[in-house]
This record gives sequence, C-alpha cells and structure tokens, in this order.
Amino acid sequence: MEEISTARSHGGVQGIYRHASRATACDMTFSVFVPPQAARAPAPVLWYLSGLTCTHANVTEKGEYRAAAAAHGVIVVCPDTSPRGDDIPDDPDDWRFGKGAGFYLDATEGPYARHYRMASYILDELPALVAANFPADMSRQGIFGHSMGGHGALTMALKHPERFRSCSAFSPIVQPTTSGWSRPALQKYLGPDERAWRAYDATALIEDGRRFKEFLVDQGAADPFLQDGLKPWLLQEACAKAAIPLTLHMREGYDHSYYFISTFMSGHIAWHAARL
Amino acid sequence: MEEISTARSHGGVQGIYRHASRATACDMTFSVFVPPQAARAPAPVLWYLSGLTCTHANVTEKGEYRAAAAAHGVIVVCPDTSPRGDDIPDDPDDWRFGKGAGFYLDATEGPYARHYRMASYILDELPALVAANFPADMSRQGIFGHSMGGHGALTMALKHPERFRSCSAFSPIVQPTTSGWSRPALQKYLGPDERAWRAYDATALIEDGRRFKEFLVDQGAADPFLQDGLKPWLLQEACAKAAIPLTLHMREGYDHSYYFISTFMSGHIAWHAARL
Repeated sequence: MEEISTARSHGGVQGIYRHASRATACDMTFSVFVPPQAARAPAPVLWYLSGLTCTHANVTEKGEYRAAAAAHGVIVVCPDTSPRGDDIPDDPDDWRFGKGAGFYLDATEGPYARHYRMASYILDELPALVAANFPADMSRQGIFGHSMGGHGALTMALKHPERFRSCSAFSPIVQPTTSGWSRPALQKYLGPDERAWRAYDATALIEDGRRFKEFLVDQGAADPFLQDGLKPWLLQEACAKAAIPLTLHMREGYDHSYYFISTFMSGHIAWHAARL
Repeated sequence: MEEISTARSHGGVQGIYRHASRATACDMTFSVFVPPQAARAPAPVLWYLSGLTCTHANVTEKGEYRAAAAAHGVIVVCPDTSPRGDDIPDDPDDWRFGKGAGFYLDATEGPYARHYRMASYILDELPALVAANFPADMSRQGIFGHSMGGHGALTMALKHPERFRSCSAFSPIVQPTTSGWSRPALQKYLGPDERAWRAYDATALIEDGRRFKEFLVDQGAADPFLQDGLKPWLLQEACAKAAIPLTLHMREGYDHSYYFISTFMSGHIAWHAARL
C-alpha cells in the first residue's frame, strides 16, 4: 500500500492511498479518514460507497464528513467505484457502465469478469488492507453510500448482516434489476439470465428472505433521477412487507448532488456512530 | 447576470452565476450561498477571496462553509481570482502570475491594465451586482480569504474599514512586496516602482497609517509556504506596533490545503457573524 498524501483535518488525518488490487487486477485508490480518538483505541469503521462517475475523491473533497467523523470517533473509508486503468474494458460513451460504474458486484461475463469484481474488493480485499494498516476495530463496521453506492451499501448489508452493525443511504438505487439506467450494466456484467441479477438488488434480496435490522435513507424530493432510477417507494414496500424498519426522509427541494449529501452527512454519521 | 446552477444545501441555496464584467472586461463566474434566514430579512454578506490557482469552485466545493453560514444566517460570496478567457494576457507556465493569480489589485502596466482589475471588480462591480440580485444587507459586510485571498481580505479591510465590519484570513500572504512568490507578479502588474506596491501590502498599509479594528488569522504550522511566502510574524509585528488587535492561531500539523481551511471555517464564520 502506497501513501499518496496525508493531511491533518478536523483533528484527524485524511489520507489517500493506492495499492495493487488482486480482486480487480489493477491499481486501486481509496481514502481513509482517521479521527483523533484512534490514537488512543481502535475506532469503528464506516464504509462510504460512491455513485456513478465518482472516484474516492468526490466524497473526500465534497462530502463534509470529517467534522462529524472526528466528533464521533469514526474511521471513514471511501473506495473507488470500479477498476481503473487504460487496459480495463469500458464504454467511454456510457457513464452508467464500465469505469466509474462497477455497481459493487462481481462480474461473471467476459471480458468484464477479470477486473469488475468490486464486491470481492469491497468485502474481502480492502477490509483486510484497512485492518492491517489503520487503527480500526473491525468488529464495529457500518456502511453507507450514495446512489449506485447506496445500492452497494444496502445489498452488502443485506448479505452480511453479521458484519455490518448499521446501514444507511443517500438517494440509493433500490431496484437496479428494473431501473433503466442499471439494467444494461447488469446485462453486460452478469449475463442475460436475470435470476443472477437478484443477488445485487436490495428489494429482490429482501423478497428472497434477506434481512437487516434497520435502514436510514435520505432522498431529495427534487432529485431528477427520482422517478426513473431511484424509486425509494419500492424499498419502502419491500421493507414494510418484510417488517424491516426503514426511516425514509424525503427532503423537499434537494437534488442528487453533494450539496444534498453534505447537508445530511453529519446526521448519518451520528446515526451510525450511535450503532457502532 | 446568468444563473449557471442553483442547489438547495444546508437549508439555503448555493448558486453559481456568470456575468459580463466591465471591470475586468471579460465574463466572470462567482458563487453565492444564501442562507434560509434571508427569506425573512436581508442577510449580512461575507466575502471569501480564494488563493492562487483557484476559481470560485475550490472553496464552494471544499470549503465546508454552508453549515455555519446557514446556522448564522450569513450570505457567502466567492468570486474568482482573476480575469478569465482565451484572450486574457497570461503566463501559463507560472502559477503565481496571470490567470488564477490576480492578487486583488488594479494593474497599471500594459498589457495587464485592461483586464487585471480585481480590486475594482471585488470592491465596486460585484457588490453592486450582489446588492441588486440577492437579499443582502450591504450595511453589514465582512471579508476573509485564503493565502493570496487572505492578502486580498487584509488589504481591502485596511483600505475600507468603513465598509467591512470584520476581517479574517487563513494563511494569508501578509507582505507580498517582499515575498518571492508575489514580487514577480507585482512587478508585472504595477511596474518597477515599488512604492506603488505598498497599496497592496497589508504590513506596508499598516506602516503607512491604515488601521482596522481587529484581525483573526489561522495559519497551519506545517504549511510548506510558511517560511518563504506567508510569514505571519510580519503581520504580528506590524499589528503590535500599530496597536491593532490580532488573534493569530498557529495550528499544529496543518498544511495549506482545504483540509486545513475547512477545519477552521465554521469558527471563522461564527466569529464574523458575531461582528456582523
């Protein structure tokens, strides 16, 4: 693991790191904020998964999470959203697929199966790296994310409720198997048999019996992707049927941007901290 | 004035705007955050001047000022740092001069005198535009900034103490007439007679009799520019001699970046709000 930069911020240290990933067979960059409390005792870890087109940098620069993470003593890890590099199969004309659009799954279809393994990366390889290199208490982990990253957080929490003590999301894609902007990607990554897609769909996982103790979701009511891509009411229905407590805040006037996310970031971090 | 974008954030509205500037004879872009309180009554205005290489966007995205500005009911205006456009005289190989490095002065030397008129832009043209287009109480204005923008804030406050009720800075260039990274720019903008430079040097202005009621300065003790470019002790000496109260916080371990600025941003905004 190579340190690209570190800077003191809000009493802790914001670092950017790079490493050769086995899971994605390329170099990957991620950021880690270590709060001041971690100098005394290992701190809980909160994973933030970013949305389409993002790298680790968007939330690291615009997310406004450090003040709250420092106040609550939480390590925040922000991975990239896909494999990266010139030799990675991609469709540069489609921002909803390929680089910047890994959808937090393990692809099974060629030529994507070799590199597009973000599920293994986030769930196996990166946690081991974080545990080995940072003062992290890996028995206390939470996960959250935005849009495609909200999808990642919800599905990973549903499949690993023993690992994650808390899960929240900003404007998540709650049903990628039916959403127009994710179906083409699932087809390319996972093949035409839609049954395989259900392992990466929060509402399908709930239908298929997966459970999580509770979710917190914030959604901008003026989000231009609300009706087509996001549809939080589908998660609301699925959670209601499965008796999973869901707190869904529809935020009047807010859009899909980091101006929205940063507004409610400190609330989400406090919510996670209370559960970690 | 053209609206490029607006987004709800922290209960207020973060907007980005463009207009044809007479002062700089080119199109200029700036950002304005309007807090929720401004819906009821005109709000005080806090000017943030950015540092070398920046546009309005750096602080707007990374400054973490909206939460505090919304809490205290302050409008925050973030201008660009120079004229912009393909026909603006520039030295693309020198980040300390030309585009991104206007030094908040009115150039007198050709070919710069036509466009590099950031003092007139910030002090005359933009305030009129803000007053006409936003719910601003122009009788309550404060000013702050970072690095070159800290220089801009200090010098403008010293020359216009009747306009600005408060002035603070993050890692300001306090003596650009002697600093190696600003002397070449002053020479090009203002000519070889260094007496003319003193109007744009905070310590020289104080020596020449200008006064301001008090300053707040935060400076990272691990700032790589501390010894060569910034030298806050020169401001400390000048203020001590002139009996200007200066609160100078040396922040252990902090550098020159927005990771530093954002850490102390809410403190500066609260300080200004108490004086506005």
